[in-house]
Amino acid sequence: MTTTTGQGAPTRVPRVPPEIIRPFSLQEYAERLERVQQVLAGRDVAALVVADPANLYYLTGYNAWSFYTPQCLVVPTEGEPHLFARAMDAQGAHYTAALGPHQVHGYPEFLIHRPDTHPMDWVAERAVELGVLPSGAGSRITAELDSHFFSARGYLSLRDGLHSVEITDSQELVNWVRLVKSPAEQDMLRYAGQIAEHVMLTALGAIEPGRRQCDIVADIQHAQTSGLEGVGGDYPAIVPMLPTGATAGTPHLTWSDRVMRYGEAATIELAGVHQRYHAPLARTVSLGRPPAHLVDCAAAVSEGYEALAEELRPGRTCHDVHSAFTRAIGRHGLTKESRIGYSIGIGYPPDWGERTVSLREGSQTVLEAGMAFHVILGMWMDGWGYETSEPILLTAEGPHRLTSVPGGLTVKT
Amino acid sequence: MTTTTGQGAPTRVPRVPPEIIRPFSLQEYAERLERVQQVLAGRDVAALVVADPANLYYLTGYNAWSFYTPQCLVVPTEGEPHLFARAMDAQGAHYTAALGPHQVHGYPEFLIHRPDTHPMDWVAERAVELGVLPSGAGSRITAELDSHFFSARGYLSLRDGLHSVEITDSQELVNWVRLVKSPAEQDMLRYAGQIAEHVMLTALGAIEPGRRQCDIVADIQHAQTSGLEGVGGDYPAIVPMLPTGATAGTPHLTWSDRVMRYGEAATIELAGVHQRYHAPLARTVSLGRPPAHLVDCAAAVSEGYEALAEELRPGRTCHDVHSAFTRAIGRHGLTKESRIGYSIGIGYPPDWGERTVSLREGSQTVLEAGMAFHVILGMWMDGWGYETSEPILLTAEGPHRLTSVPGGLTVKT
Repeated sequence: MTTTTGQGAPTRVPRVPPEIIRPFSLQEYAERLERVQQVLAGRDVAALVVADPANLYYLTGYNAWSFYTPQCLVVPTEGEPHLFARAMDAQGAHYTAALGPHQVHGYPEFLIHRPDTHPMDWVAERAVELGVLPSGAGSRITAELDSHFFSARGYLSLRDGLHSVEITDSQELVNWVRLVKSPAEQDMLRYAGQIAEHVMLTALGAIEPGRRQCDIVADIQHAQTSGLEGVGGDYPAIVPMLPTGATAGTPHLTWSDRVMRYGEAATIELAGVHQRYHAPLARTVSLGRPPAHLVDCAAAVSEGYEALAEELRPGRTCHDVHSAFTRAIGRHGLTKESRIGYSIGIGYPPDWGERTVSLREGSQTVLEAGMAFHVILGMWMDGWGYETSEPILLTAEGPHRLTSVPGGLTVKT
Repeated sequence: MTTTTGQGAPTRVPRVPPEIIRPFSLQEYAERLERVQQVLAGRDVAALVVADPANLYYLTGYNAWSFYTPQCLVVPTEGEPHLFARAMDAQGAHYTAALGPHQVHGYPEFLIHRPDTHPMDWVAERAVELGVLPSGAGSRITAELDSHFFSARGYLSLRDGLHSVEITDSQELVNWVRLVKSPAEQDMLRYAGQIAEHVMLTALGAIEPGRRQCDIVADIQHAQTSGLEGVGGDYPAIVPMLPTGATAGTPHLTWSDRVMRYGEAATIELAGVHQRYHAPLARTVSLGRPPAHLVDCAAAVSEGYEALAEELRPGRTCHDVHSAFTRAIGRHGLTKESRIGYSIGIGYPPDWGERTVSLREGSQTVLEAGMAFHVILGMWMDGWGYETSEPILLTAEGPHRLTSVPGGLTVKT
């Protein structure tokens, strides 16, 4: 009798198929883990529970659209990490994760969407059995409490299952370790930048009066996923955004099937993605002659960009970068209170930001070579908007743009 | 001086631009809210905190890629609901949500990604001021504790901000209200089905030996987003899946840039989406003559589908449907322990299931006309797989397939 996977019994561990190529060496994964465990050792906790898919990928290479059911990596302060996922997805982890078969644990299918039990009940029990999580009051662990895919109910199940272990918030511990990129990661960002350039040029060609928004976005997505010869595209953590006309005054409305009109402006925000590394890029396009307020705003923002790029180098603070921009646009009577950029690297839906460093007022984080930012200058006005952005890698010499798409307002007449 | 939105000050409320068309009448939103409040009244709680983007959309029409920062709708057991979101996204809510300006509240930008404070601190304080959430021990509310975008930290902030109000798990209360679709929702599902059919036919044409997986998926996504004339496509909650060759034994690995080979099989799982309503659809394709075990499996599953379709009608239980399938495939020596379907309707990343009813052993939920299911028959074997699925609307007469793509194994020679 043949049995499908998906049940609680240990899955048979298959050979890794030849089409699976991990983008990093085992040595690199080992170094990443070591850095995380060094930070953990300073925090007086027994283990870290990782739930953010980007952090799972960073630490193990595990990569699948499986984050809609609970999954986590338990990283003890000393020793090997263990991955817990739905049984049918544990199978995929055997293929993609830099973990031995004994480090991957699939929970049974009957735990999915039950009112009376939760997968994290099972995870807690199994992790204690394995000795990677402690149990009982007096012990302390830390967990990614603000991760998108670690629900409140999952947290309560884990807490109860560990019999009142103290669970502190990890405060994005792994995300902070991801901040400075290794040479191999910098290569991934460069590939992502090449794709982003191709995608934006496709988008600027596709946007025309008379075309439906959905048809323009379809062209953008095709270019994103197809990528380039030798450098395949991957899915972005955020779908392409195309705020148009009056809705350009708010940044996150998705497309509709209405037709683009001559005389209106649209902002296009998208990303090039390779092996989960993101290079986001935004431009604003005017279909026909742009109004004076849009031209003036674009010119002021370009000046602001030049000013901030002077500060975007090792040794300066995020605050320095932000204030160079605000001083420059302030000379044109403009202000912007939301941040002007954030750290990028690996991304999974719903966000390609790393949720650590923001380029904003008061941030005293000191810039280092190997950091990467999405510098995003979005001016969301009342009934219109202007947005331009650049993915930038910091080198010892200063900011390195990952694309070479011309800046400023694009006018199609 | 011009000021961009994004700060804490109340946003100016613009007129709704003419391109925003809400897909449902205000009357329909009022009825949905009333049904939710009726259930709440029976639960002895003061209010419900809704965080699932699909539930926000269902209750208000609010639709944006804004769920990566905290947002929620507070539904008091009596009276008007209030929406809380990042200030720049509150602006979008004014456009899309069936809420008055006084019901939309934007939290300040400085709350984003801070170690020392959290947007839910602000939401708790503001909701208490407005009188839509109670404060202090002795009061009780309920919240979507297992929603993807209500983090553990958000929960702890809310609990502390409400000074020890008791917070129970809503157990997917709104999702259960969504289970039976209104006539207007059924229309949306029919449109989604039309798109799904177009997308699958595109996919079956695009998959060819010698093409890269990423190029095939690019064609699929183009068809999804473009949609049909008069019926624009929307983004799916899950990217197209294309498990191939040996990795077809696990369902959720995403594409790579390797080239499809003659002689191998792939499963294609995708959705047609219109106005956030999803019609998911899966098929398996053999490039060249399929091996006997794949042909046999496909034949057994087709027989299983016919058997379950007999039971998929008002008055039967989910258990009845599941056991009809397992009996049929059991005659061929096959078993399947994971569920064979789940309720569908509105979807947002990362999942297009409604997280309520599963077609599985032991589920005594009684089927009703107006329910909709993704019947998914995935046989994930060791090193290969077969998968076929149908989006189905239940009518008084029985199951209505939302697409008419031929079933069974597709062979391309």
